[in-house]
Order: sequence, then structure tokens, then C-alpha cells
Amino acid sequence: MMTPPTDSTEQAVQALARALYRNAAQHKPSLFEAKDLLGRMIDWSLEDESLRVALFRFVDVLPSLESSAEIGRHLEEYFARVDHALSGLVFLAQALHAGTLVAPVVRRNVLKLARRFIVEESGGHLTQVLTALRKEPAAFTLDVVGEATVSDVEASAMQARYLDLLRRLTKVSAGWPECAQIDDSLNGMIPRVNLSVKLSSLCARFDPLDPHTETVVRERLRELFREAAKLGAALTVDMEQYAFKDLTLEIFCSVLAEEEFRAAPHAAIALQAYLKDAESDVSDLIRWARRQKRRIGVRLVKGAYWDSEIAWAQQKGWPIPVFLEKAETDASYERLTRLLLQGHDVIDAAFGSHNLRSLAHAVVAAKELGIPLNGYEIQMLYGMAEPVRQAMIQNGQRVRVYLPVGELLPGISYLIRRLMENTSNTSFLRQTYADRKDIASLIKAPSVAIGPMTNAAVPAPAQSGYSNPFRNEPPIDFSRRENRERFVETLEKVRAAFKNQGKKRSSGQWLESVNPANPKEIVGRVRVASLNEVEEAIETAMRFFPKWRGTSAQERAKILSDAADVMRQKRWELAAWEVFEVGKGWREADADVTEAIDYLEYYAREMLRLGQARETQPLASEANTYFYEPRGIAAIIAPWNFPLAILTGMTAAALVTGNCALMKPAEQSPIMALHLLDILREAGLPDDACQLLQGGGEIGAHLVRSPRIHLIAFTGSRDVGLEILREAYTYRPGQSHVKRVVCEMGGKNAVIVDNDADLDEAVVYIIDSAFGYQGQKCSAASRLILLDEVHDRLLARLAQAVRSLKIGPPEDPRNAVGPVIDREAKARVADYILLGKQEAKCVVAMDAPKEGFFIGPVIFSDVDSKSRLAQEEIFGPVLSVIRARDFEHALEIANDSDFALTGGIFSRSPAHIEKARKEFRVGNLYINRGITGAVVERQPFGGLKLSGIGSKAGGPDYLLQFLEPRTVSENTLRHGFVPPERLKAK
Amino acid sequence: MMTPPTDSTEQAVQALARALYRNAAQHKPSLFEAKDLLGRMIDWSLEDESLRVALFRFVDVLPSLESSAEIGRHLEEYFARVDHALSGLVFLAQALHAGTLVAPVVRRNVLKLARRFIVEESGGHLTQVLTALRKEPAAFTLDVVGEATVSDVEASAMQARYLDLLRRLTKVSAGWPECAQIDDSLNGMIPRVNLSVKLSSLCARFDPLDPHTETVVRERLRELFREAAKLGAALTVDMEQYAFKDLTLEIFCSVLAEEEFRAAPHAAIALQAYLKDAESDVSDLIRWARRQKRRIGVRLVKGAYWDSEIAWAQQKGWPIPVFLEKAETDASYERLTRLLLQGHDVIDAAFGSHNLRSLAHAVVAAKELGIPLNGYEIQMLYGMAEPVRQAMIQNGQRVRVYLPVGELLPGISYLIRRLMENTSNTSFLRQTYADRKDIASLIKAPSVAIGPMTNAAVPAPAQSGYSNPFRNEPPIDFSRRENRERFVETLEKVRAAFKNQGKKRSSGQWLESVNPANPKEIVGRVRVASLNEVEEAIETAMRFFPKWRGTSAQERAKILSDAADVMRQKRWELAAWEVFEVGKGWREADADVTEAIDYLEYYAREMLRLGQARETQPLASEANTYFYEPRGIAAIIAPWNFPLAILTGMTAAALVTGNCALMKPAEQSPIMALHLLDILREAGLPDDACQLLQGGGEIGAHLVRSPRIHLIAFTGSRDVGLEILREAYTYRPGQSHVKRVVCEMGGKNAVIVDNDADLDEAVVYIIDSAFGYQGQKCSAASRLILLDEVHDRLLARLAQAVRSLKIGPPEDPRNAVGPVIDREAKARVADYILLGKQEAKCVVAMDAPKEGFFIGPVIFSDVDSKSRLAQEEIFGPVLSVIRARDFEHALEIANDSDFALTGGIFSRSPAHIEKARKEFRVGNLYINRGITGAVVERQPFGGLKLSGIGSKAGGPDYLLQFLEPRTVSENTLRHGFVPPERLKAK
Repeated sequence: MMTPPTDSTEQAVQALARALYRNAAQHKPSLFEAKDLLGRMIDWSLEDESLRVALFRFVDVLPSLESSAEIGRHLEEYFARVDHALSGLVFLAQALHAGTLVAPVVRRNVLKLARRFIVEESGGHLTQVLTALRKEPAAFTLDVVGEATVSDVEASAMQARYLDLLRRLTKVSAGWPECAQIDDSLNGMIPRVNLSVKLSSLCARFDPLDPHTETVVRERLRELFREAAKLGAALTVDMEQYAFKDLTLEIFCSVLAEEEFRAAPHAAIALQAYLKDAESDVSDLIRWARRQKRRIGVRLVKGAYWDSEIAWAQQKGWPIPVFLEKAETDASYERLTRLLLQGHDVIDAAFGSHNLRSLAHAVVAAKELGIPLNGYEIQMLYGMAEPVRQAMIQNGQRVRVYLPVGELLPGISYLIRRLMENTSNTSFLRQTYADRKDIASLIKAPSVAIGPMTNAAVPAPAQSGYSNPFRNEPPIDFSRRENRERFVETLEKVRAAFKNQGKKRSSGQWLESVNPANPKEIVGRVRVASLNEVEEAIETAMRFFPKWRGTSAQERAKILSDAADVMRQKRWELAAWEVFEVGKGWREADADVTEAIDYLEYYAREMLRLGQARETQPLASEANTYFYEPRGIAAIIAPWNFPLAILTGMTAAALVTGNCALMKPAEQSPIMALHLLDILREAGLPDDACQLLQGGGEIGAHLVRSPRIHLIAFTGSRDVGLEILREAYTYRPGQSHVKRVVCEMGGKNAVIVDNDADLDEAVVYIIDSAFGYQGQKCSAASRLILLDEVHDRLLARLAQAVRSLKIGPPEDPRNAVGPVIDREAKARVADYILLGKQEAKCVVAMDAPKEGFFIGPVIFSDVDSKSRLAQEEIFGPVLSVIRARDFEHALEIANDSDFALTGGIFSRSPAHIEKARKEFRVGNLYINRGITGAVVERQPFGGLKLSGIGSKAGGPDYLLQFLEPRTVSENTLRHGFVPPERLKAK
Repeated sequence: MMTPPTDSTEQAVQALARALYRNAAQHKPSLFEAKDLLGRMIDWSLEDESLRVALFRFVDVLPSLESSAEIGRHLEEYFARVDHALSGLVFLAQALHAGTLVAPVVRRNVLKLARRFIVEESGGHLTQVLTALRKEPAAFTLDVVGEATVSDVEASAMQARYLDLLRRLTKVSAGWPECAQIDDSLNGMIPRVNLSVKLSSLCARFDPLDPHTETVVRERLRELFREAAKLGAALTVDMEQYAFKDLTLEIFCSVLAEEEFRAAPHAAIALQAYLKDAESDVSDLIRWARRQKRRIGVRLVKGAYWDSEIAWAQQKGWPIPVFLEKAETDASYERLTRLLLQGHDVIDAAFGSHNLRSLAHAVVAAKELGIPLNGYEIQMLYGMAEPVRQAMIQNGQRVRVYLPVGELLPGISYLIRRLMENTSNTSFLRQTYADRKDIASLIKAPSVAIGPMTNAAVPAPAQSGYSNPFRNEPPIDFSRRENRERFVETLEKVRAAFKNQGKKRSSGQWLESVNPANPKEIVGRVRVASLNEVEEAIETAMRFFPKWRGTSAQERAKILSDAADVMRQKRWELAAWEVFEVGKGWREADADVTEAIDYLEYYAREMLRLGQARETQPLASEANTYFYEPRGIAAIIAPWNFPLAILTGMTAAALVTGNCALMKPAEQSPIMALHLLDILREAGLPDDACQLLQGGGEIGAHLVRSPRIHLIAFTGSRDVGLEILREAYTYRPGQSHVKRVVCEMGGKNAVIVDNDADLDEAVVYIIDSAFGYQGQKCSAASRLILLDEVHDRLLARLAQAVRSLKIGPPEDPRNAVGPVIDREAKARVADYILLGKQEAKCVVAMDAPKEGFFIGPVIFSDVDSKSRLAQEEIFGPVLSVIRARDFEHALEIANDSDFALTGGIFSRSPAHIEKARKEFRVGNLYINRGITGAVVERQPFGGLKLSGIGSKAGGPDYLLQFLEPRTVSENTLRHGFVPPERLKAK
């Protein structure tokens, strides 16, 4: 907590703030004055949380609605759920009854609302606004709003638009008379034209892991800098989400450090005070500028992604990068203000805020440091806090307005952020103008303990030990340079270890594991188990089983949890081996290791839960307990596509429940299985509890048929799965039990895109779902069902985005698409592509390296939903696009499959989402997100129909399949004597 | 609550009680004076609940321990668990270390303890005690203690012993000089010889349902009365558990009403004040005696089965017959005292109690009614409260001592009851002598709100409606005459309805259901479904399925609960139909209906639990829900042996989870299936949700193979079960899912009898388990494994007990053994009997009626555990006895089976019980009780190995088999906006 304001600075800040407040309070900013429909809705939303959510979501979807009927339907769907009892909503209720009649009015109102924040580029409107601002006088910086960039084509178009704007504005501004308050600085005249640029808009996908991002963005930024320098304009690089921050700073500094840009253009970068990192970033930047002997601008803002940063970090299990208390951010803002002003020798500071207290503090701090009014500037958003702006201008400040330009409706995501900012409980503007807080509380010094901003949804610090609650293992954060560097080193180290992996030390048959990106490279060799050895292994397991069954659930859970610890230590190496053995990209390989750790920890805890016997009913006369015991010997038959996670999951489940496991990994990934065995042993698992049998399908078949196997856990293809089921449930002489089969098979997963979908998101998620790991996931999207209206638009953007992908060895993070697993897979996929070219229209087909098992991503459109392309599992990077008349038709097509594993929809219609929940019958349905990458406990995973038998890995019912329940009933009466504790209440 | 004592009576009672107390307080009764090992253990047990339990249980098992080693082992097993930290237990700890050395000491001590309460009949000891008592002076009544009666042979021996005692005592007492205080009454001299008789000891099994009980007991009681009349002795009929009370009173009165006994003998009956019924029983008895113009004695006691009565009633769900508060019983005792004294014209009242307050109240009440001291008597137990007895004698009262005679160790159950009485927290003696409560609180008038006796384990009143917690349906209480009469009427009514059941109204094939006790009697006819009709039914179900799936869990649960209500209304008729259709006895038939009701109510509630979608993790960015959906069309293939319960259970599970059901009942019980269908329809189940397909195995086979069936729920034989599994898991063209099989198969269930078992209990439970419903239960005991030492003793008693069973049509409740289901079954069982006669030694084989499918119960001994007799399921009344060297060997034999459904052990060794819990691997293990009759929720039921697949009917995991889990994940972020409720803590 900061000490209360007692010194003279604080007194000066408060005095200035009060003076500004008195001035500003005479006016109300336009947002809070609106008396039309949306103005009223905003008023109500201040009072009612559910209305606020509905309102924001409705505004969010509006741009995608093409007809009045659609607007009317969405209005009804969003607001019919809101509690109409609120008296203020009578009007809204009437509007709903009016149905589609109200739609044009609504659209007009939203456009009107948008116009308060966004300036249309067309029709001279921009010039008018700029001229008016100049009269205040206020400077400006332009921000281009619109769709997100998802392809190289779009990135290139965005760059062209920036260049065009620079040139046009230079012409417009050339005629303006000079105005000292906004044109002068300590270091002379400053550019009148100022453009804000988001680096993510300059490439197909801004990804710090992909070195291509840096190359491309740098090149496009260079051109912008070059043009700005030529025209004498200024450029500010905007700051986006935390994951982009380091790379954004790097690109900004490295380009500016180039000889060409040492003098020009005027360049600035935005920094966010809500980041815990911000202080060190500011210090670094000042040091860098001094070393470079170059002035740069810094726009200090508080940050606009607070909700998302918390949500994303929580989802990944990463540290929350932002302060959780609003007061902490306010205090940080003041600290950074002073820091920037102290760097005045190289920094042109700009303070972006609407908070009178923060701004007054900046002005007073500058004054105390002897920095004149033209030595820094104040920045504010267009359409917001106009009275504050006027007060600052009257105070003689240089004020720059941040001015979004673009089409109104596509700029809606910008509008939403502004609405959020204005209507959040902690918004200074809301507190001032809507809640009418008293001036003293509004302008008091930020004290960390004041606000109600504590966020309890934030994960507690991770804890080790199996008795703590389960927490998903956080993936490696590859947006951090040190992690990228470490993984590069690990890849080298692992490659160097290939030759040590499996030297032929004995006779028998051997299996070679090769790098699918370079099949000449042998990753390792393993000895194949003979059928005699399989029988010996069963014998060993049977001998050991009673002992293993006899260990406590605690003991077994502890071994799993210890194995998770070992895996954490080896996670870098494990992921690196996986890149080479099965051709996974970095993130995918790491995710597989993460998931394996999750299975170990989750099943350990699940067993602790299930390991407790429960008394079924409290009875005086009888003690009835219900508890679980293991089944016996489990055969684990695992696939190569998640070579660590799935093998670990099935094996861990078998072991922790007290079964002895015989692991039969896929022939394509024997080395990952070896690693798992080592890890389990290192964690203290007795040798005989789990044995590894390397080899091909004949070993699996032998295990499945053996009368001494109790349980088969299988993940793989449908045909093999169905055969296993038939064989396992065929009773054989010598068998004294019914076998149990835990079985996950294939998928032919569909994603539906509704007419009102957010296409910016849909394109990115569809690419990940369809082409991540070359489509070699049972959960991968292989059918894309597009509603008629959205079909062409989405397909065009998607095709462009896919064409932006690079294909090549996955050890190079530039490559989004790697090889398929082996020669057979390549041939099979190639056959399907040939078939597709006959059956449908090929929209995308890309060249791929000839060496290695590469196949470029393929998109077919106009696919018949009954055709083989749409019905058979291809297990490769092939996406079939099917056109649907309407949402019902889309669901019908989606369900028209013998598979039912995953599925997805992109829609912003509450009714369609609800309908999909009920009627899109797949094991895992994903709404407005990718359809792969189920997380343990969070998304219990498994399919219906011929995709599986309904067992869900990583879910609460999974372990039950490995157990058998028993009941023991003991008569507690002995000659009429009941133990007194049993007579008591339970 | 009673009003506090203000009147003169109360003052007189208190004054007398104080006087008696002062007198008695000078001495301590012998139990609380003991300074030897057991005396000390009793002292400690007053302080420590767990020691008390251990002590009682140890004393309970002691008589069955034949060697010092055994005594030592049990000592250790019982007391090693007790908390030795208690300082007083140092001695015990030492004794344990001394091991078997201490065994003879312990046995000697227990004998010594027993001698305080029980008089040995042999060696002149009885005469000594009687002579000593007479000197006090105190009268006596003898009570014979020993093993329970479980066969006609034993009943007859007990009667002979009573007769012998009457004769011997008459001789002994003839020489005694007269003593007015105890020999005189208002109505002249009273008999010196007084014998207390338990009616349950006069027949093989005292069962109010069995009219044979009344016949046999009446006849034996008549002989006792006749001899007593001849000898001038008195007989008192003791009162046992509540279930025996009505019949005991009936027999007592009806025999006394016979002309022969109108004048003699002196006869009395005991009544228990803790019974809520006691007041009306006393009134009835007085009225009866007045009508009969006959004096009878009534011994008023408080009652010695309090724990058990509560436990039994709770177990059955019947009303608790006893008062729950000790004060209520005390108050009841005083009310009844006055009532009896007011019936002084016909009643010779005897007040049996050790409670000074209760006794003082009786004395004062008599005085107030003008009844002189010789107009009533006081009774007290031998070995207890001697100072109170002396005080009463000195007060001039006629005191009679209740004197148990018999062998010390077999009389131990009597000893336990006495120990319980003395050491219970509410015991007057304990409060007086051990807890040393002050006199005022000891003798105050019973006020209902005083005691801590409230028993919270008592079930709450039954509630209807599926939203209330689950409660097992109470069975019909056939110990009540009105229920017996109602069932007789129902049987007649149902038989009259046979001809209406299934007239041939259409063509096609018809099936006749016959009464297995009289195959000429046709219970009903049903039309067999053709395979075309089966296909149509599947079609209908598929059409209806989406609608049924779409109904809410609440709605479906409500229909089940409503069906349970309909079933309750029809329960009498349903049970009666079952008696005729499948040859079940009354209780078994009623139990089947009860279980069917339980399934409906339990699964309804289970579905409410499972019907709630759960959020898997609280995340701001994503809403992840996990929920269940039905699988589709379920084929229900049910057996005839629980024709309502199993069919209802499987069908209810399928329906409530939202599957459409096709019921295929056994051909032997089509009528019960018809009834179920009617009930479901009456409860509002849509017609197409459940269809009935009558016929033979070809229909089941067709359903199992159909590619349109999703789930098969089967209960039946192993061979059919294994075939169903193989067929169901063989994928067939047109099938777009993996079928699920819920499968319960046979059993070859073993009961182990340990050397220390309570044979009284074991014999009864083994008969029920092996021969109940003619052994036609998958849970029936078919192997009896006897430890060497106990083998001959148990087998002899068991054989005698079995020979006491009557065989014949089950509609007559006299018959414990009815017919097997059909001609094939009879032939199959007969073949096994022939085989048994070759393989083993036939111990019991009984004649059975030739008409109908009757087979008398058979016991084979010396059975080889590997023989067919010991390995194959016979499904009839055949029990194979196998001899085991020791407990480990017994477990080994028990587990040596491909089946593992139920099992049982009778043992009082904590270590053996623990070992059995772990190593006796069956689905349902029962300890010291019968191994059939699993109760829904209480004992989830199902087998392991080739008995089943581990699904447990009536358990928490059962419904999961009928469901498939789904996960839906919705991205909750929209352009960075997170709904505020998701950001909050969960």
C-alpha cells in the first residue's frame, strides 16, 4: 500500500485535478448524454449485468447480420433472456414485439453509436473531423479499424492502406495553418500526420514462435517507416495482447536501429501500465534509446485487454501478466509517468488516459521536473471524455486524439472495447458521469487496497504432490525468447543422441523409427517382442498382479504423481524427441507432453477419490460398503499420433487402478514408449507392473485374443477397433472372465459456420483444427459445412490464409505444416486427393517438399455430403467443404456420419448455439473455438457412434472402466447387541 | 411430557423409593464388585465404548472356541484394535503379550462371570441356589438357556427338557417348609415350581406366517400345560421379539381357552412396557380374562430387545415398535402398572424391574387400590441388583427371582443381554452403582424430555414423490394377521382371474403360462411376437426415440415414480400372480414386488442426479459442460426367477435414461411382464417408449443381432450371456454404433462357516440362502464350505433343520419349499442329483409331491471342490458341502470357480472377516448373514468373472451404462469481453 498523500506533490496533483474537474464537470460527454434507443440501453446496462452482456454480444454480432429479419431474430434471442421485470426495459419489450420492424431502427442506432467513436474514411468525413479537431486545437493519430488479418494477401492490403493514408493525410494537412499548442515541441516542429499501426495487421498470423513473423513484419514496417520519413509523418506502434509484447518491442527497436531509420521517422510505441512487466520494459526502452542516441515516443496507456489477459492466462495456467486491482494499475501508471518523464532526454512522453487524477499527476510531475507543456503530450480517444479533453486544452496542454478510421460496422470490435471501458464499474468516466461519485474519492491517490477488483478466478500458485487439487500443467510459453532458444538447443541435443538410441545388442527382429520429415534419418531402433515373449510377459504380469492389487490407492497415486514430476523435468527432451519421431510442430509436441503430465496427475487424484469405500446406507443392523477393485491384466494398444499422451493416459489409468499393464505402442513411435517406460520406472513403478512390448499388429492381436487378458485399452482406427471388440468379446477356452474393452476410434469431424459467425476467429480456428499436425488427429476437422450466405466469403479468406502456411520439417518453427507419419499414410492421403479431384472442386492444393512424407494442405469445395470424401476418415491435411441451405440443413449434414467424435460451430445466435448443444450429437462439441486439443478434466474426451464407446479420457467416469465394483455387507448385530456408534445418526 | 409430581401419590412413591434406596445402598450388587479380570474389563467398558463393543463380541464368540490357541487369537484380534492408551488397559496389554497362556484364565473368568447369572443344571448346583433363595425368602421361575431351536428334533428335545424340569423340581420343592411371604396369595397357595417358557423353542422355526408354527407350538404347549396342571406347577410364557408377539399372545390365550385348561395350570405371560402396543395388549388381555372368567398372571417387564427392535424395523422400513426414549418406557411402565392392578379381579400382576422408582410406584399404586402385599409380586433377575431385592424382601414383598438354567457357555447370549442391560448408559443399576447419580435424579418421575435416548438412525416417515430422498419400500409384514388374511383373499381373487388373462383374440402363435405347482392350471396366455413384429417394434422405437430423448430427466423420473405408486396400489395382486406364475412363496413374491418398486424409485432419483450437466472447471474464457445422453434402443432380456423386479429394474434404467425399451421377458413369466407394461402405461409412459415382445429365445437372438439395437440389458444364464456378448460386439452392416451389453449371468456361490461361527444363526441363514425359492436365484448358496472342526456339528444341525421343511404349493404358507419352474428344470436338477449320488454322499434327500415340478431339498457332503457338482450352476435346491482344512483353504475353495457373484462367511474372528473382505472375490460378499436378497441402493448387486461384467444393479454406477457422456465447450470471450459472472470466483 502506498502512503497517503501528504507531500506537496500530492497536494498539487489534487489541486490541479479539482480545477480540471470543475472545468470538465460543466459538460457531460456525448456517450452519457445519448437519449436514443442505444443510449438508453447503455444507461440500463449500467444497472443490469445480464443486459450489459446481451447488449455487448448483440452489438458484436450486428455487423455480420445482412437482413432485417436476421437483426430481428438476434435481438429477440439476446434480449428475450434478459429479465424484463426491470421497469426501464418496457420499451425494449415493446421493440421485441414489434419484431423485424425495429431492425432498421436498431441498425441505424448502432451506426450512430459507432460514429461517435469511429470516423468513416470515405466521403470527406475524415477531413471534416480533422479540421474540427484542429480548431480545438487538438492533434490526432489515426488508427485503422476493420477485420483482423489472417492471410498474406490481407496483410499486404493493410500495408497498402497505411501507405495510402499517410500520403492522403500529408496532402490534406499540408494546407493547415500552424498552431503552436499542437505543432511545436521542445525539439522543434512535430509531424501533423500521425498514424498508429498494429503489427499483427502486417502478417498472416502474428506468432512470436514463427521466425517468419519477424521477417515479414519487419519488412512491411520498414516500408511504412521509409514512407513516413519521406513524408515527414509520425508512426506509433500500438500494443496488443501480452503474448505479442516482447516481439513487438523487438521489431520496433531492431528496425529503428537500422542505419536508414536512425534519424527519421518520428516513431513511438505504446506501453501498458496494467502489465507487471511494464516498469522494466520502460527502463529497458529508455536505456536502449540512450544507447542509440535516438529520441522515441512512448504512449503510456493503462491497457485495454484486461479481461482477456486474465482469461487467457487462466486457461493456460500461466502467470497473470496484469495487475488484478485497478488501483495497482493506477499506481503503476503514476510510477511509469515519472520514469518516462525522467527519460525526457530521449523520450517524448504521451499520456493516454481519461482519468483526471492520472492526467493531473502527469502534468504536476512534468512541472516538477521542469519539463514545459510542449515537452510531452496528452492523448485521449475520439468520442470519449470530451469535457476532460476541453479542460486539458484550456490548461494549455498539447492534446492528441486517437482517431479510429474505417468502415463503421467492421470496426465494431473497437466499439465493443470502448463500450466496455465506459461501462465497466471501475471506469473513471462511468464513476464521474454515470455513478456521480464525489470528487474526493475520484481523485484520491491510488491505494492498492481500495478496489473490489480482486479476481478470484485466478489460479492459485501451482503445487506439487498428489494430495493437492488437480491443476492442468501449463504449456511452454513460446512467446518468450528464452524458451524458444532453449528448445532449439534441446532439439540439437536430442538429435545428437539418435545414435545411442537402441543399438542392436541382441538378436531377434528389430524395428527402426525414422524421422518422417527425413526418412533417411533413423531416430532409434527397438527389438520386437516375439510371441513367446508376449506370453512370458502375461505370465509375469499375472504373478505380480495380486501384489499390485494389494498396494493402496495412495501408493499407486503417488507413483503416478512422481512420474509426472519426472516428466516435467524431461519435458523439453520429450517434446524434442516427438518432433523428430512423429513430425510434430513445437507447440503440438509440447502439448502432447503437457497432456501426458495431466493424465498422470488427474488419474492419480481420481483414484484417490474412487479408492475410498463408501457406506451405501446408514443402518444400525448392517454395514454395507461399496468399493472398487482392479480387473487384472490390461493390454494397452496405443497410436502414434499422440505418442506420449495417449499411451501415458491409458497406461496410467490401468496402473493407478491396480491393473498390470502391457504396453503395445504403435510401430511408428517406439522411442516415445521407451521414454515413458523409463519415466515410470524412475518414479518407482515396480518392473512387473508395466511391461513394454514393441512390435506390430500381430502383438496386439495376440494380446486381444489371450484368455488371460482382462482389459484392452485401445485408441486407433475404426476397423482395428471393431475387430478388437469382436475378438475380445468372443469367449475362449481357459477364460474365466468377460473382457472389458476401452476403445476410441476415428472421426470425420465437421465444423459448421453460421451466417453470423465471427469470420476473423473462424478462419484461424478452422486452420488449426483441420491442418494442425497435418490433420492427423482423430479430433481434426475434415468437413467444413458453410451456410449459403457466408460460404463464398469465408472460403475465400480461408483459402488465402491456408496459402500463407509454410510446409517443411517441423523442427523449423517457420513450418506450420509438417510431414505425415509414413509412406503408407502419404500414399493413402494422395489417393484421397486424387479421388477428391474427381468428386469435387479443388480450391487449395500446395506444393510440398519431395523428400520426406510431406503433403501440402488441400481444400475441396462443392463436396457431396454422401461422397466418400465426406464420409471416410482420411487422417491427413484434407478439408472438404460442403454447402448448407440453412442451419438445420448444416446440422443434418454434420450428423450424417457413422462417426461422432468432435464437432464445432461458429455462430453468434443464442438459439443456434442452443440447438447445436442438443442436436449436434458428437462426443465433444466446440462452440466458437477450435475442435482439437481437449484438455484433461476440462474437456473429457471421447466419441459416440463408431468413434468410440462413450468412455471419455480425462473425465470423471474414465477410471471406472478399469475397475470392478464390489459390495460387502456385514451383519453388525450379535445376539441383539448393536455397536452404539451404529445406532447413532449418520 | 407428564406433569411433575405434585400429588400425594408421587410424594408416596418418592418416599418409598428413598427408603428402599437407603436400605439397598448399603450393599453393591455383585457385578459391580468384581475385582477379577472380567470385572475390571466391565469397569473399563463403562468408560470406553470401543472396549465395550470388543468385550461383548469377545464374550459372544467365546463358547465356540475350543482351544486355548483359539481363545488367545480372538483375544488379540478383538482387543488389539482397542485404544490401549487408556491407562486401565495396561493389564490387558500384558495379557495380550502373554498370548495363549492367558486363555485358560480368560475362559475361567468368563465362566465365573456367567455363573453369576446362569445356574448350571447339573451337579446339585440348582438345588443349592433354590434353597438359598428360599431362605431370603424369594420365589423363583426357571428359564432354560442354550442354543436356539432350528429343527423339529431340537424343538422336541426342548419340550422334553421342560417336562423333565417340571417333574424334577416338583420333587425337590415338595420337601420345602411353607413360607407365607412367597407361597401365599389372595387366592390361596401358589405353586412353588414356576417355569418360564419361550414359544420359539417349541418349533423348528417360529414364523407367524407359517400356520404350521401355531399348530406345532400349540400342541407342545398343551403338553406342558397338561403336565404343569397335573403337577400343580406354574408356567409363564416369555415374550421375545416384537414380530413374535401377536402370535405368542394368540397361542397363549387360545390354548388356555380350551376346556381342559380353564382351571389349571397357573399360567402367566410376559408383556413389554417398551412397546407402543403394550397398553392395548394389556387392555385386551384383561377383557379376555374377564370374558373367560379365568385368572392369569402377567409379568410386566420393560423389554430386553430394544437395540434389535430398532435395528430390525429400520432395516425393513417398518414403524419402530418401541419407544425411543427411556423415559417414555418408564412412563409406559407406570401406566401399565396401574392398568394391571385395576384388572386385579382376573390378573395376578408381577412387576419385573430393577428400577427402584418403577418398583416403588407399583407398590404405592397397589396400596392405593387396596391390594395387599400378597396380591401381586415383584420379579428380579438372578445375579442382578441383589441389594434392591433385599430391600424389597425386607419391605414384605413377594419377590420372585428369574433364574436361567443351563450350560454356562451356550447360555452366553443370555449373558450378553444381561451385560448390555447393566452397562447401558440408561441402566438404573449402572446409574446407581457405577455412575453414582444422586438419588433425586434416579427416582424422579419419568419425564419424556429428559433422556439422551433419541435415536436419529430411525427412518423419517415415508414420503411420496420423486423429489424426496430415496427410501426402500417396506415389505409386507406377514407377522400381522390382517396382512395374512388379506393375502389369502388376494390369492383367491387372482386365481379367479386366470380365465380372463389372455383369451385368444387373434391368430398367430400363443404361449401358455402354467402354475409350476400344478401345471394343469393355466395362469394365462399371450400371443408370441413374430420376427416381422419385432422389426416393426424396432422401427416404432426408432421413430419415437428423438422425442423420448428430448423429454427432461425430471419428466421421465416422474413417470417412474408414478409407476412405483401404481405398483404400490397393486402390490398384493402382483405378489399373488407371482406365487402362481413362477411358484414363489409369499415373502419371496412380495420381496420381488418390493424390489421392483425400489428400482423405479431409485433409478428415478439417480437420473435426477445424473441429469444435471456439470461444469468441469471454472474458467473465465470457456464454459465446459459434461452431461449424459441416452444410447438409443434398448433390448431388455429378462429371466423368470425375479419376473417383476429384474424386468422392471432393467427396463426402468433404460427408460429413465431416455432410451426406448423393447422388453423380452422369459417365456415362463409372460403374465408378470404384461402387468408391468400396464403399470408403466398407467403411470403415463408413452406407448412407443416401451414395447413388449413375448416369446422365446429366437426373439432375443434377433434383437441382439439387429444393427439398430444400441443396448442389450440381459440377466440370465452364462451360456446365453456369453453368446449375447459375442453377437452384440460383432459389427454388422448397417450398424452405425458400438452396442453396449449390460450383462448379469450365473453364480456358484459359496458360504464358508468358520470354526467360531454362531451356528444358531448360520443354520437359519444357510437354509434361506440355499433353499429359498428352491435355490432358483443366481445369488443362491450352492456350495457350503465347512471348516474341519465345525463340519460335523453344523452339518448335523443343518440336516435336521432342512428335514423340518415342508414341500408343496407355495400358495400355502406352510410350504417352505415350492416347485422348480418347469419340466426341463426339474429334469436338469434330477440329473444333477443322480450325478451327486455318484460323486458324493447324499445327506438329505426328501420326498416331494409327484404332481407339479417339485424336487425336495438335497444336501451332498464330501463333495470334491473340482467336481461338476461343485463347479456347475444347478439352479435348484441342491447344496454341496465341501470340507476345508482351515480358513485359508476355505477361501481357496470358495474362489476356485469361474463364477463370482455372491458369497458368504460366518465367522466371529475379526482377522478372518477382514481377510474375507479382501480375498473372497465375489461381487457381493455377505458376512454373518444370508447371501441372497440384495436390497436396492443398500447392496448394489452384480458379479465378477463369468458371473457378469461388473455392472451393479441398484447401485450408483448402473445408469451410466445406459448413457453416453458428452462434453460441450463454449468460448465465452467475444472480442475480449468476458461475461462478468465468469470472471468471478466459483
